[in-house]
This record gives sequence, C-alpha cells and structure tokens, in this order.
Amino acid sequence: MPTVSVIYFSGTGHTTKLAEAVQKGAASVPGVQTHLLAISGDDIVKGRYQNDAVLARLDASDAIIFGSPTYMGGPAGQFKVFADATAGKWFTGAWRDKVASGFTVSNSPSGDKFSTLQYFFTLAMQHGMVWVGLGEMPMQPNGVNQLGSFSGTMAQAGQEPTEVKPNAADKLTGELLGKRVAEYAVKLKK
Amino acid sequence: MPTVSVIYFSGTGHTTKLAEAVQKGAASVPGVQTHLLAISGDDIVKGRYQNDAVLARLDASDAIIFGSPTYMGGPAGQFKVFADATAGKWFTGAWRDKVASGFTVSNSPSGDKFSTLQYFFTLAMQHGMVWVGLGEMPMQPNGVNQLGSFSGTMAQAGQEPTEVKPNAADKLTGELLGKRVAEYAVKLKK
Amino acid sequence: MPTVSVIYFSGTGHTTKLAEAVQKGAASVPGVQTHLLAISGDDIVKGRYQNDAVLARLDASDAIIFGSPTYMGGPAGQFKVFADATAGKWFTGAWRDKVASGFTVSNSPSGDKFSTLQYFFTLAMQHGMVWVGLGEMPMQPNGVNQLGSFSGTMAQAGQEPTEVKPNAADKLTGELLGKRVAEYAVKLKK
Amino acid sequence: MPTVSVIYFSGTGHTTKLAEAVQKGAASVPGVQTHLLAISGDDIVKGRYQNDAVLARLDASDAIIFGSPTYMGGPAGQFKVFADATAGKWFTGAWRDKVASGFTVSNSPSGDKFSTLQYFFTLAMQHGMVWVGLGEMPMQPNGVNQLGSFSGTMAQAGQEPTEVKPNAADKLTGELLGKRVAEYAVKLKK
Repeated sequence: MPTVSVIYFSGTGHTTKLAEAVQKGAASVPGVQTHLLAISGDDIVKGRYQNDAVLARLDASDAIIFGSPTYMGGPAGQFKVFADATAGKWFTGAWRDKVASGFTVSNSPSGDKFSTLQYFFTLAMQHGMVWVGLGEMPMQPNGVNQLGSFSGTMAQAGQEPTEVKPNAADKLTGELLGKRVAEYAVKLKK
Repeated sequence: MPTVSVIYFSGTGHTTKLAEAVQKGAASVPGVQTHLLAISGDDIVKGRYQNDAVLARLDASDAIIFGSPTYMGGPAGQFKVFADATAGKWFTGAWRDKVASGFTVSNSPSGDKFSTLQYFFTLAMQHGMVWVGLGEMPMQPNGVNQLGSFSGTMAQAGQEPTEVKPNAADKLTGELLGKRVAEYAVKLKK
Repeated sequence: MPTVSVIYFSGTGHTTKLAEAVQKGAASVPGVQTHLLAISGDDIVKGRYQNDAVLARLDASDAIIFGSPTYMGGPAGQFKVFADATAGKWFTGAWRDKVASGFTVSNSPSGDKFSTLQYFFTLAMQHGMVWVGLGEMPMQPNGVNQLGSFSGTMAQAGQEPTEVKPNAADKLTGELLGKRVAEYAVKLKK
Repeated sequence: MPTVSVIYFSGTGHTTKLAEAVQKGAASVPGVQTHLLAISGDDIVKGRYQNDAVLARLDASDAIIFGSPTYMGGPAGQFKVFADATAGKWFTGAWRDKVASGFTVSNSPSGDKFSTLQYFFTLAMQHGMVWVGLGEMPMQPNGVNQLGSFSGTMAQAGQEPTEVKPNAADKLTGELLGKRVAEYAVKLKK
C-alpha cells in the first residue's frame, strides 16, 4: 500500500497546521496510507536526534515530505539535527528512489523561505530521492500558491493564532502538494 | 515510445562530450528514444532565443535533461536565454509532469557548479516537472561521481582537448544519469 | 570620488523604475557619483555581449549593483549573457574588492526571486567583491522591505503600468539599498 | 581594537583544524584580536542552544566567521541550532554591519559544500552583515583554493587523521580567508 509520511518540526504550531493539510491532501488519494510525524526536541540530546521508531516509519514509506518553519534563513535547527540523523540511511541507500517534497512557513511573503526548500531538495538528492514540487500556477483566483512558490509549498504565519494562519488558501496549497506527492507515490509503486 | 531529450549549450565542446554520454546512457534503456539538441548562438537574436523545432521536440519528450558549462557561477548565458524562451511553455503548463535532470562542466572540482544545478532544478520546478538526480554514492572506486554531486552530474574540464576531458569517469557518471532519467521516463509513462 | 554603478536589464520597464530608485538612493550620499547602465539586447550578438564602454564604466566604479527581473527562476538571459562577458575582468581580478549588491523584480511575492539574488551574490564572489545586502527589517509600517528580503531588494510587478508598480514602498526599499551600498563605497574608499 | 571571532562546530576535529587556520590568518593582521569559539553539544538542550558568554563575545566582535562541516547537504544541525539562537540578535539588529564570512569541510571535492556556504551567507544577510568571500583564484600552483570556491573556504577531509586532512593547501586557504576578513574588519572599524 503506497505510504506517504510527513516529517516536520513546528515551534509555534503554524507548521503543524500546514503539515496536517499536506497529510490531508495525501490521504485524499485512494489507496494511500499516511503518517504525520513530528520532530520533538525531547529526541535531541546534546545536538543529536534519536528516535528509531520515526526513522523506521520513514524507511517503510514510499514518499517523504519534509516540513519546517524558516528560522534565520533555513530550516529549524531541530529539523537539521533530524536530517543529520539520517546519515545512516544515506550510507545504505535506504531512501533511494523514494518520492520527496517539502513545505515551509515564515512571517514575510518571501522571507528566505526559498532557502529552506532548496535545503530540503539538497537533502533529498543526497538520499537519491525523486523530487516532486507543487506544480501549481502562482496567485490563483482562489488563493492557491499566492506567494508564488514552485519547488514546494510556502505559507505565511507570524504571531497570529494557529486558527487564523496559515490561512485557508495556504492550507489548500499544502493539500495540493500532499495530493500530488501521493499520486506520484502511487504511480511509481506500480 | 518514451522519449528523453538532452538540451545543452557548449562553448568549447567539453559539455557536448558530456551531453553525448548522457544521451548514450538514456539510449541504453530498452524502448527509449533520445534526442540530442544543442543550443546555438545563431538562434539568439538581440538576446532572445527562437527555434520552434527545438521547442517542439522538447514538447514531445517525456524527459528533458538540461546541460551547460558553469560560467561565472551559473549556467551559460546562452542556456539562460533559451530557458527564458520556454516561458510560453510555462504559461500553458506544457512541460508539467515531465521528468527533468541536469549536468554541468567547469574547470575546478567545486567551481560553483552546484549553483548551476540549483538553477536547472528551479527552472524545472517552475515548469512543474519532476526532478531525478544522480542517485550515486560519491567517489566510487571506478571514478563514478568523483566530484561528489547528487542533484545532477558534474564533470571537470578546462583547457584540455575534448578527447581528454571530461575523463572516462565523468562520462560514465553522465551515462548513469541518462540511464536513470530514462528509467523514470519509462516508469512514469505507463 | 566614490562611484556607484547600477547595471541592469529590464524587459518591461519595471526593473528600470527600481534601478532608478536604487541610483537615487546612492546619489543621496554626499560626494558619491552614480551611473545608471542598462544592458541592451542590441549589444548581444549570437548570445555574446559586447559593450566596452559599459565595462569600462564598471571597471572605474567602486561599487556595482546588479539588477534584473526574475525570469524562469533566475536572472534574465540578457543579464546572464552580460555576466559571462565579465569573465575577462575575473581573469585579471579587475573587480576584486569592489562593493556589490543586487535587486530583482517579479510578479509573485516570493516567485523564486531569492534565486536571482543568490546568483548575483555568486557572481560577485567569483569576482572577489564584497557583498552588502539590504540591512532592513521586514514588513516595516511604511512598507519598506514588505516582501521580506535580506540579501538584496525585491520588488513586485506584473502587467501593471510602470507608473503603478513597483509601488512606492518597493522603490523606497530600492533607495535604501542604493544608499547603503554608497555608504560602504565611501567607507571602503578611505 | 578590531576583533574577529571564529564560531564553528566540529564533529571529528577536521573543522577545528580549519578553524584554527582561519583564526591564525586573522591574527596575522596587525592590531587584530581574535577569538576561537566552538559550538558544544553540551550547550544544546532539547534542540535549543544556550551559551550567553559565547553570544556576548560575538556581540563584541567586528567580524564573525562561521564554520561547520557539511552534513547531509548543509551545515551541521548543531550549527543550525546555534544560528537559531541568534534570533534575538536579529531582532535588535545587534550584528548589523559586522563583517561575515564562512568555511566548510566535507569528504568529496564538491560534496554540496556550496550549499553550506550559501546558508552562511543567507544567515549573515538576515543579520544585515557584510559578506567578504575568499577572493582567491582557483587551483593556484601552491594549492590555494584547490577546490575552486569563491564565497568562502572549502576544505576536504573524510576519515583521515586530523594531522593529515585538511591538508596544508586547504589550511593555507583558510588562513587567507581569515586574513582577508580581518583586513576588512580593520578598514571598516576606522
């Protein structure tokens, strides 16, 4: 059964909301199983991440979607610490040929979010994964891809409550990413 | 019939050699048709590229592999002028869901070649394409991926004759990229 | 006399407006001389740029600010062709230690404009230049840095008349970049 | 007194060796004071970095040089966690106008090290710092800049003992970076 996992870090809950939207989109594809996996600071000891259960879930997935706020021009430190803990998977080629994608949240419209998506792509390429981006035209009338991002989904959120931001349009943009990734997971599983 | 096109610019002939290797790799996959398409300066008038035959070939391809030397920290100007001429394809979504990848050549081991591959990826994402990287471990005993590149193939060549550089290992790294892209073109065509 | 040159390509006139604002900001610094230099398609023959007068102006400048729309995920092809024509300057180190910066325009809030600024930076580093970014907090009440860019100035403009876009806030953001670069040109000239 | 600080993370000691070389280069400039500051995993609790003494040293510096191995296509997680802890400095503009640069180490010649330097640059730009790159021609006869990097210093090291790698040429490349940054710190302090 094609399996799509969303692995993300969230500091304020905004990225959690977007992660849920991405999962919802993936789960909307018939026959696809999804996992929503949060990176917890509790699993980081002296700057190293360890959670074998999370890594086993990812090993067993056909697609992995990375998510993080953009902090100081890149993915959150907690996400990067997680990424470093996948070096063992790199060494054995365990994630080769899995589908990859990503999403990120920050306060400004641009806000160097592109840098975070570039990092996710670079990580995926080290693993030999295949990258599926958003594939949606920018600034659609219904708000889809309102920020104009192509390699993954960007959403905007600052100090607003998580009920307000990311807004409906950004969450829909996340859903469309999840759906597209899941469709590729199905196609490539055959 | 799954079709893989290699579209590239070459200033000194070194990138042509790598492009031929990439095509050879793609053509080695049973049932795959390939095209090797060079970007010619003759098709650039006042900074704009026009060659409808080349663009029609690409429209009819299932995978497009971008190639260019790295000049002044990015793809050759001639390649970028070509890329801008694909804006019409972007507008109509003509290249959406095609497989994409890329390769680049420069004189230094690193030499900002990563910047050129990042650009190819960004271009592919604007088109809604799916990116397939090299998927090979670095510094293999037979020389494959000797420079340590993951998002695409890098090769090294300076003033040496094109019979000497790119060397056999770099050309083999190009072949493996072409083969991998063609395999995905076949899988996704089904 | 400290000299700041703005070298840019504009396809629709929007980047020209931003370039003028950047120049205005630079010229506001006492004792600074400025040049506004447009890259013309007429100077591109078969994909190669030649205009010795423009290059001589840049050679004689203490700071060079690069500008271009973001087309298909990067600087306009015309800009890249110009950049390749500076390879001779690279070889002789003619631009080493000059101050550098950049600005870009596209239709979407994010729109991969970061990729264009990254390229400008990479180009500047190849030349051994020193990069001065915007240095302004994002989303200021008066609209300064409303898109949230740090490495240079981003502005938004699509099909609107050039009297309307870039808007006043984006042009002010351009002015502040020009002023900051000119201040560094003065400091480093001493 | 112009002060240059080198802040780095090292997992295996190779980056420490390069950091020492960078410091040596900075200290060779008359009248310059230097600090060598290691990021320790002991200062990371649940994925957050805290060490007020280190941050105070950086606040009091005129130039800050960032260093990290390239792990999984970017700076080490420990470095990124440190970077996130500078958000308070971002908010108050405490590091605005300081000189910035960076260096990185990995096993392959290219090895996505450019991605790490791009991140350092992006971080510096968020802080409103001024970036000074290597400014050395590639592949010099004495081994300086043998990998061909421009935005900062790259060095190569894998499983070799730290007495062997980074090699003398890479360490000299680090020294030249430190010296260049220190010279700019002096110039801009006046």
